[in-house]
Order: sequence, then C-alpha cells, then structure tokens
Amino acid sequence: MGTDRTMITGTTRLILHVGYPIAQARSPLIYNPYFSRHGIDAAVVALDAPPDSYPALLRAALAVDNVAGMIVTMPHKRTTYALVDDCSVAARVAGACNAVARKPDGRLWGDLFDGIGFVRGLVRNGIDPAGRRCLVVGAGGVGSAIAAALTDAGSAALRVSDIDAGAAAALAARIAVHFPASAINAGPSDPDGFDLVVNATPLGMNPGDPLPFDVARLAPTTVVADVVMKGDVTPVLAAAAARGCRIQLARDMLYEQIPLYFALFGFGPVTADEMRRIA
Amino acid sequence: MGTDRTMITGTTRLILHVGYPIAQARSPLIYNPYFSRHGIDAAVVALDAPPDSYPALLRAALAVDNVAGMIVTMPHKRTTYALVDDCSVAARVAGACNAVARKPDGRLWGDLFDGIGFVRGLVRNGIDPAGRRCLVVGAGGVGSAIAAALTDAGSAALRVSDIDAGAAAALAARIAVHFPASAINAGPSDPDGFDLVVNATPLGMNPGDPLPFDVARLAPTTVVADVVMKGDVTPVLAAAAARGCRIQLARDMLYEQIPLYFALFGFGPVTADEMRRIA
Repeated sequence: MGTDRTMITGTTRLILHVGYPIAQARSPLIYNPYFSRHGIDAAVVALDAPPDSYPALLRAALAVDNVAGMIVTMPHKRTTYALVDDCSVAARVAGACNAVARKPDGRLWGDLFDGIGFVRGLVRNGIDPAGRRCLVVGAGGVGSAIAAALTDAGSAALRVSDIDAGAAAALAARIAVHFPASAINAGPSDPDGFDLVVNATPLGMNPGDPLPFDVARLAPTTVVADVVMKGDVTPVLAAAAARGCRIQLARDMLYEQIPLYFALFGFGPVTADEMRRIA
Repeated sequence: MGTDRTMITGTTRLILHVGYPIAQARSPLIYNPYFSRHGIDAAVVALDAPPDSYPALLRAALAVDNVAGMIVTMPHKRTTYALVDDCSVAARVAGACNAVARKPDGRLWGDLFDGIGFVRGLVRNGIDPAGRRCLVVGAGGVGSAIAAALTDAGSAALRVSDIDAGAAAALAARIAVHFPASAINAGPSDPDGFDLVVNATPLGMNPGDPLPFDVARLAPTTVVADVVMKGDVTPVLAAAAARGCRIQLARDMLYEQIPLYFALFGFGPVTADEMRRIA
C-alpha cells in the first residue's frame, strides 16, 4: 500500500469541501493522509464554488454515486440549510448546515457539527457542561450551534448574548422551541456567575479588536472557550488564562467534528486524537 | 516535494473525469503521478455521474473556480455536445464531446479529441495520413471523429462504412459540410485499395465478435488501426499483422489525447510518451 496520489482511482469515494474562497481549507491535509495510511479508497477535494451556482452544485454533486458527502463552509452554510430535505435540530436552531449527505432514499440530510464538536472538545478536556451555568457571547451561526449543543448536553442554565439584543432573544426563543424544559435567557455579556463562557463572536480575528466581554469580571474558576482560530490562544483566552481560568481552544472544536463527518459519510469510526496527530 | 496525497490542498486545481460507470477510468492513474512528479498542484478525480443529474452537474461543476475542466466519457458525450455553448468542428461532426472547459468569458467550450489523438498516434508512428486513401469502418462517435480528423489531415480520399448504411451516408454528408473540398463517400467495408483501414466499431470487445471487415482482402501494404482497447492486439489487428500489415493500437489514440487535454485545461505542454512511461 502506497501513500501516493496514484491511490486516487476511478473508484475513489470523494468528500467535497465546498466554500468560497476555499484555498484555506485544511481538511485535505488532515483527511487524505489518514485515508492513505489506512488504505481507504477515499479523498477530500476542495471546491471553490461561487454562490450563484452553488445550489445547482449541491444537488448535482450529491447525485454523483461516488460522492460520499459535502463539508460546507462560508458562505454556503445558510444556503445549504435552505436546500436540504431534512436536517438536525442543531442545524434548525442555527439555520445553517456544515455537513450534507445523500440518504439511501435520495433525500439530502443536513447537519451542523460546530456545537456538538465544541461540546465533545470540552468533555475530552474533562469539562462536562452538564449542570453548568453557561454564557455564549455571539448569537450567529456558530453561537447558535454551541448554545443548542450546550442545552442538549444538559447545561443547568444558558444565557446568550449579542451586541444585537434582538438576535440573542431570537436565538433563545429558537432554542426554547426545541428544548422547552431548558433554562435559557438572553441578556448582557457580563461573565460574572458563569461556570463556562464562550466567545462565539469573530472578535479576536483582527488586530485591535475589542475583547468580546469584560474579562475583569471573570472568576478564576470559570472555563473560557473561544471559536476564533486565529493564533490558537486568542487575546480573550490569553486574558482569561492570566486570571487563572482554564481555557479551551477553537481547534479542539474542529478536530472533534471529524468523527461526526466520518459517521455521516459512512466511514468507520475515528477519534479526533488520531486526526490531530496527522496535522 | 512529496508525492503523497497530502499534496491535495485547498488550492488544488481539479480535472473531473465524468462517466457512468467510471470505475474503469485510468486517467487518475496516469495524470496524478505526473502532477506529483512535476510538483503541479492539480489532480484528476473520477465522478460516477448518473445521466439524469449530469446536465446540472456539467454547468455547476464548471462554474467552480478551481475546476480546470472535464474529461467526459460514456454515456455523457452526446449530452455534453448538446449543452456546451460552442465546440470544435470535430465535436460538431461527431455530435459528441469528450472534453469541456470554461472559457474566460464563462462560456463552455467542448471538444472531441478522439480523432486528432488518433491522427497524432499515426504520425508519431511514421504514418502521415496526408495523401492516403482511408477507410473508416463504423460511423458512430469515434468513427465520426476519426473520419473528420483524417479529412482535416489531408487524406487523399476517405470512405466511411457502417452496417447502418444511412449512418455512414449521414456522416459523409456532415464531413462534406465542414470540408467541402474533400473526396469522401460512404460505401461497403471492403478494404481492398485502401492505404489505411480503421476499425471504429466495437467489434472485438466481446469474445466471438465477427471481424469488422474482410481481412482476406487486405493488401500487406495497408496500415490497419483499431479503436478497441481490449487486449491491445485485437482479433482484427492480429489477423492484419498475420497478413504482413502494419498495425496501430487503440492505446496510442488515448495517450495522444493527453497533450490536447493539457492544453485545453491550461496546463503546460506534455508529450504522450512522457505520460505513457507512467502507466
């Protein structure tokens, strides 16, 4: 068994990673070495797909027999949600999908793994959100997914906060529809009194961004997590660590999604740690 | 520079080889090692695309920015011809395309390389069809392409023959439209008096197939070529060789198309011999 690109044959199953732009995609660099090492006849290829032709591409590409599924990234996540035939609760709460596969009956199933990937990352690091008071700052797609997943994981109480108070209130209402027994509210971003605080805003991606919440009000017992990938230890994580808080990197959320993609696309079980060792 | 499948990244340009079935496709095994060896960030992947969703796939996939083009095989060649915005004379004569690329203005250009690949293979083997009397047996897609290419290459006279005499007459008429000065006719498959005889029928693919023409009437000075890949030296080629004829294998036609695909898809020049050494 070689690891050469000649391993791509006429029978190779394909996972399409679709975005616009897509040049930054890391999935081929992680999945493909794994497939090579394990002799699995599959490959991830990236497609730089403009929005206007994306709806047709989604349908036509998933009708191809050897396409196992799609990993969807910006700016196509909301479009995908609008186009799939059925989807998970997480996708519905966020109104977005980052994973699509064709079911045996031909229907397209959409899912959104950010939130469950985030929770798996926490649990792997010994932080079970069950029974914890959680604050999610940022009510966009990723924040919605994380809020839904924390609720599903049994958080004791959840607050969602956004600079757009209406967006936060709407997210709280969407979660309440799907998890009517949960204690959820929308409110300010003050981290005082929370066991877990998550930055789900893009703040930290650009130099000079303000911090997403007032770190001076963090207790050292609070766990602080970030969804911003840039630089791993982002400014808010650095500030939290300086106060003695445990921190959780965005990278963990990404790696923990890989086993979920594998399961959806019909590949055997894999652990995030196996994939992490590749990159 | 490695040759690992990790060379597929978010920026890799893709050539899609599309058919149904496609498992037999050899292009990934030939093109990809070439790209790896030369450090070219490109890959061929095969798509097993059912006919009903193929038209949407063609348009949507070629709108993807990093898709360099499509290699099209059965059963999509005629559909492709019907869908492209413009195409070569060879494609028009055959009513089929085996290559598509998006032009800078967004229009889809179709081509059919079987015929010119066939002629390039002849020339490489020292057999220039210019001034030769040629017989093409089989007036389907490949036969049409070869007949057009032989005419374009300056054959002195060309006969096309088919078990369906109407199909042969129609092909002769189509060629006459595009090459009004050529001496072309439709007629019987008797090889007597021809310098070059081409089997462009599928006869020879299955055991027990009759020979496509009467080899007993071949002169030893006649060159005999076949488009059937199966077994390289097909029954008609074996019979012709036994009579002292020079023969030309179908494989040459295929390898000689690769430089044409490369040029259409915007890759640098390559020779068929370089590609042949890989496989």
